[in-house]
Amino acid sequence: MYFLSIISVSFFLIVASEAKVLNKNANTCEEILGPLVDEIRSYEDVKDKILNYVLNGDFKRKTYDELAIFVDKFGARPSGTQVLEDSIDYMIELSRKEGLEDITTEEVVVPRWERGEEKLTMVEPRIKNMVILGLGRSVSTPPEGITAEVVVVKSFDELENTPDENIKGKIVLYDPIFTTYGETVAVRSQGASKASAKGAVASLVRSVTQFSINSPHTGSQNYADGVIKIPTAAISLEDADLIRRLYDRGEKIVLNLQMSSTYDDTKVSRNTLVDLKGSQNPEKLVIVSGHIDSWDVGQGAMDDGGGLFISWAAPVILKRLNLTPKRTLRAIFWTAEELGLIGAYAYKEAHKEELNNINFIMESDEGTFAPLGLYVSGNTRTRCIAQEVLKLFKSINASTLIEQDGAGSDIAVFTGNGIPGASLYNDNEKYFWFHHTEGDTMNVEDPDELDLGAAFWTAVSYIIADLSEDMA
Amino acid sequence: MYFLSIISVSFFLIVASEAKVLNKNANTCEEILGPLVDEIRSYEDVKDKILNYVLNGDFKRKTYDELAIFVDKFGARPSGTQVLEDSIDYMIELSRKEGLEDITTEEVVVPRWERGEEKLTMVEPRIKNMVILGLGRSVSTPPEGITAEVVVVKSFDELENTPDENIKGKIVLYDPIFTTYGETVAVRSQGASKASAKGAVASLVRSVTQFSINSPHTGSQNYADGVIKIPTAAISLEDADLIRRLYDRGEKIVLNLQMSSTYDDTKVSRNTLVDLKGSQNPEKLVIVSGHIDSWDVGQGAMDDGGGLFISWAAPVILKRLNLTPKRTLRAIFWTAEELGLIGAYAYKEAHKEELNNINFIMESDEGTFAPLGLYVSGNTRTRCIAQEVLKLFKSINASTLIEQDGAGSDIAVFTGNGIPGASLYNDNEKYFWFHHTEGDTMNVEDPDELDLGAAFWTAVSYIIADLSEDMA
Repeated sequence: MYFLSIISVSFFLIVASEAKVLNKNANTCEEILGPLVDEIRSYEDVKDKILNYVLNGDFKRKTYDELAIFVDKFGARPSGTQVLEDSIDYMIELSRKEGLEDITTEEVVVPRWERGEEKLTMVEPRIKNMVILGLGRSVSTPPEGITAEVVVVKSFDELENTPDENIKGKIVLYDPIFTTYGETVAVRSQGASKASAKGAVASLVRSVTQFSINSPHTGSQNYADGVIKIPTAAISLEDADLIRRLYDRGEKIVLNLQMSSTYDDTKVSRNTLVDLKGSQNPEKLVIVSGHIDSWDVGQGAMDDGGGLFISWAAPVILKRLNLTPKRTLRAIFWTAEELGLIGAYAYKEAHKEELNNINFIMESDEGTFAPLGLYVSGNTRTRCIAQEVLKLFKSINASTLIEQDGAGSDIAVFTGNGIPGASLYNDNEKYFWFHHTEGDTMNVEDPDELDLGAAFWTAVSYIIADLSEDMA
Repeated sequence: MYFLSIISVSFFLIVASEAKVLNKNANTCEEILGPLVDEIRSYEDVKDKILNYVLNGDFKRKTYDELAIFVDKFGARPSGTQVLEDSIDYMIELSRKEGLEDITTEEVVVPRWERGEEKLTMVEPRIKNMVILGLGRSVSTPPEGITAEVVVVKSFDELENTPDENIKGKIVLYDPIFTTYGETVAVRSQGASKASAKGAVASLVRSVTQFSINSPHTGSQNYADGVIKIPTAAISLEDADLIRRLYDRGEKIVLNLQMSSTYDDTKVSRNTLVDLKGSQNPEKLVIVSGHIDSWDVGQGAMDDGGGLFISWAAPVILKRLNLTPKRTLRAIFWTAEELGLIGAYAYKEAHKEELNNINFIMESDEGTFAPLGLYVSGNTRTRCIAQEVLKLFKSINASTLIEQDGAGSDIAVFTGNGIPGASLYNDNEKYFWFHHTEGDTMNVEDPDELDLGAAFWTAVSYIIADLSEDMA
């Protein structure tokens, strides 16, 4: 999961079962939606049919099992690699086997940043090896590494308030305490550039997570124009906190950082579009999506294998149940999300003349733990429709609507520009424990939670794709 | 923390506040103890004085801060290394600075098992690097490693029921699901020998933990007499489960295992004895203890830095408060626990003529999270005294007594042979997440919980050392 920008999340309508909130907003939405409210309620049986097929029927455990086979076969699928392309071919074939024939791929030029050897050693006040993960697009050090003293800062403000002469020639360690991902990740994505501008020779960041077993977390970063590109990496909470304690005791801390990598921005990958053609308005789209690429560490099971497979499952389940919505349901498997939503930007450019055909765009890229509802972007009418649809999912505790401008990661490219959409709100409080680490594996995934996610995703997207009126 | 044997834990008296249990046992214990019950209750003020000094007074945060300085300075302290000896000298000096002068060291011959390069690669059905930690005393592979197919078994029973020809020349992976440490650890400590006896060329074990971020857990193992010594290592839950899934799908799995290590069993280390001499019966001992050595991975902050420092704190706090018990309070910093309780066995041998001077022996080696009470070994009288003492700690929720034959790890050498003793019962449900991993760092430790532990440890040991009657 990449993060486009810091998004303010306002809690609009939480928990439809709270009577007071429900009544107040239900009245408002009922006025806005009129007879559409009853139409939405009439999907109760279809919703039950889908849930029953996935939770108790032939599709039970299918999402988990297919995800496991996929993840075990390919492992990590970094942007610009052959294994990513092979995994795309596999998903096309897997969809074809289910009778889905309207499958298109669209080429996208993507970067390949390849991690080489990485080593960090504290050489003063004592020798200690520290585990690191270089950040995306980081440049290499000289072969012997960079040996320099450390300056520790909590924030960009503290960096700015430190005289340049105290930064020059040093390694900057950022050690913010995790608040939210959106807030804390800034030191990862922009830290190298800001440290370089002050004369630092390298930068490190305390991993963006709440919890660790000495596990570093990689992630993307971009060099600002005009700055000297300095090597940059994440270290574990534990090593960052060790350095902080030594630093606060006035100890001189010297590190040797060795990193190597290569970068090639001329590779070609593909977005994959799997369509279940609409019966009445096939040109209109309801999109479900996840990204198929992953970081090079871990297995990309959580980020975003789960989102990929519940989005794959939606047209498959509808096809199996012979449910054809009025509009086309399109599953998109985005490529090259991790290095900056590259697949999503390419899709937007390729389809710029027909973006108003997107009735609703959905994405799952923050885990597929038990679904709780949706983060929804859109105007009041969109929110009201989403709210009425979500009320159908009280039985599985997935009725919560949270209003969020620019919801999603890939789809923020669209929802941030006024296209109605939603990302999956799920019980993902441990998501960042594993995010962008070697721990992103099938062990994070749960068969029952994936069933709930696939059922919810399929039923919500079907209903929206089948309603008599458009979202906006 | 090492594990001597599988110990059955029976819950004897849980929660003194449950009236029914309390009354039943209180009556019994009151009959057994007679006027000693009132004597124990008279320690309420002394207990409050100690708790107040540690929780709210000059000693607040001292245990955490001193532990952090120690751990940050020395890091890992494996048996047979100079850094362990330096850390012992440091603890002696730290104790002397507190005015404790009765300090003795006793030499112990200890092994040095030194980990070299370790690498595991799955070569079929696809290439995947897998992180490993060799187990203590493991032999090396040839430089090019051992390349062999894998056989996966859940248990020794399953191994025994597999024909030898299916094991011969293969690598055995044990993948038991974690139940309790005592039960699950057997595959780690005896797995190599049992696999070797069936003709395996190496053995691997799914790490002994409930939770992982792809983190392998080392630990001790011993080769049985007469078997060919084969290399043996722990792998992460995630990689073990990946191999299991592939195996259950009928895939052929080939691994290349490369390990190197050296072993020298002629090193010399020291147990450290810090005495606060008793005022009336200085020859009689109440011992508080933890081990100062650690595994080579992680920083030995939890295992057993916390136990070491609350045991260091006990005589320090009493000295500062001018509280001298009737019997001698002895803090012991055991050496070479991790490779098999070597310091404890040496102490037992060196003091074999005077073991009956040990009135009560205590150990903390399962974490120093919030204290909850004690695991107590001993006869009914011992348990009754312990129960009455624990009732004084209701205000900090540390009144629970759990009866356990052979309580402790190092002290099991004593408590397993009838000497009364207790190990710390604490809120350590996450202990094994970090145990014997790179994640055993100061980040696991909490200043307030260490204060509670130090206060509890000091007050309990003081009261028992000061009572008018012996434990047994």
